[in-house]
Amino acid sequence: MQDVLRRHDIPSCLKICAGTDGSVTQLLEVLTGKNVKVETIAQHVVKATPEIAGLLNIETGEDVNDRLVTLKVDDIVYVLAKSLAPINRIPQGVKDDLMRADIPIGRILREHKLETRRDILKMEIVHRDFFGDIPVLSREYKIIYENSVLMWINECFPIDGRWRM
Amino acid sequence: MQDVLRRHDIPSCLKICAGTDGSVTQLLEVLTGKNVKVETIAQHVVKATPEIAGLLNIETGEDVNDRLVTLKVDDIVYVLAKSLAPINRIPQGVKDDLMRADIPIGRILREHKLETRRDILKMEIVHRDFFGDIPVLSREYKIIYENSVLMWINECFPIDGRWRM
Repeated sequence: MQDVLRRHDIPSCLKICAGTDGSVTQLLEVLTGKNVKVETIAQHVVKATPEIAGLLNIETGEDVNDRLVTLKVDDIVYVLAKSLAPINRIPQGVKDDLMRADIPIGRILREHKLETRRDILKMEIVHRDFFGDIPVLSREYKIIYENSVLMWINECFPIDGRWRM
Repeated sequence: MQDVLRRHDIPSCLKICAGTDGSVTQLLEVLTGKNVKVETIAQHVVKATPEIAGLLNIETGEDVNDRLVTLKVDDIVYVLAKSLAPINRIPQGVKDDLMRADIPIGRILREHKLETRRDILKMEIVHRDFFGDIPVLSREYKIIYENSVLMWINECFPIDGRWRM
């Protein structure tokens, strides 16, 4: 377990969402008893920079779907999630759902019956303009499918009282 | 989400563990901040009955690893878990770990880098002799690997005050 999850100043419900190797959306729905709403802030296809190519194990210049969403319950943002997915590696049906956006990634993978694994890369406390002065627990992980990176994901969880649920 | 997870008489921490499509052991470790201990009650190879063959999509009479364990933290049992795995479908390294027992299944899958998905089949309130009069939330799911059932799992969570953590 990552050390940051042992800190006493981080709310338990946040720790649970940040600590799972399963779907965060699903846990948020269990915790709140309500539906999670995915809201897309930005979604477009970009050419991989050397940095992105490194994260995804692809060549610089390849097409990548770059998506930034929030996960909300009752208009409260619990997660800001950025995902990068190499277009050529995404199975067709998955691609349509991913680019239509507004569907949580866990649900997309489940509905298309993909077999995957999630490799957690990093967990740290940072700041993000989106959340202003509120400290943020950030985690990065890769979703692996057929031995390749299907998606690199960064989820940011604001550390404050909204997690008392 | 399963209806049983919306009931108000079920402790939140239990709902979280029963509601995840990820590793229960990992969530228990985040919730308690301690290591989970797997204790094997029984582990042996059996010939598939017609019922077991149906659960695993194999032929009657094929060899199946039948394992019953508890997940404990500080000597408190949080989960009683039964798993059935068709011997011929388990990759060799996984088989050794599984039959040596005392390693949580989520950790075995992660360490061998298996890509899988979990299909929840059923969730219900039952009684189990192991927990005496305490009602039990039971869930059944399959771990799918290479389009076949790698494991059928039944996890039983006692519904009582032990989940106040």
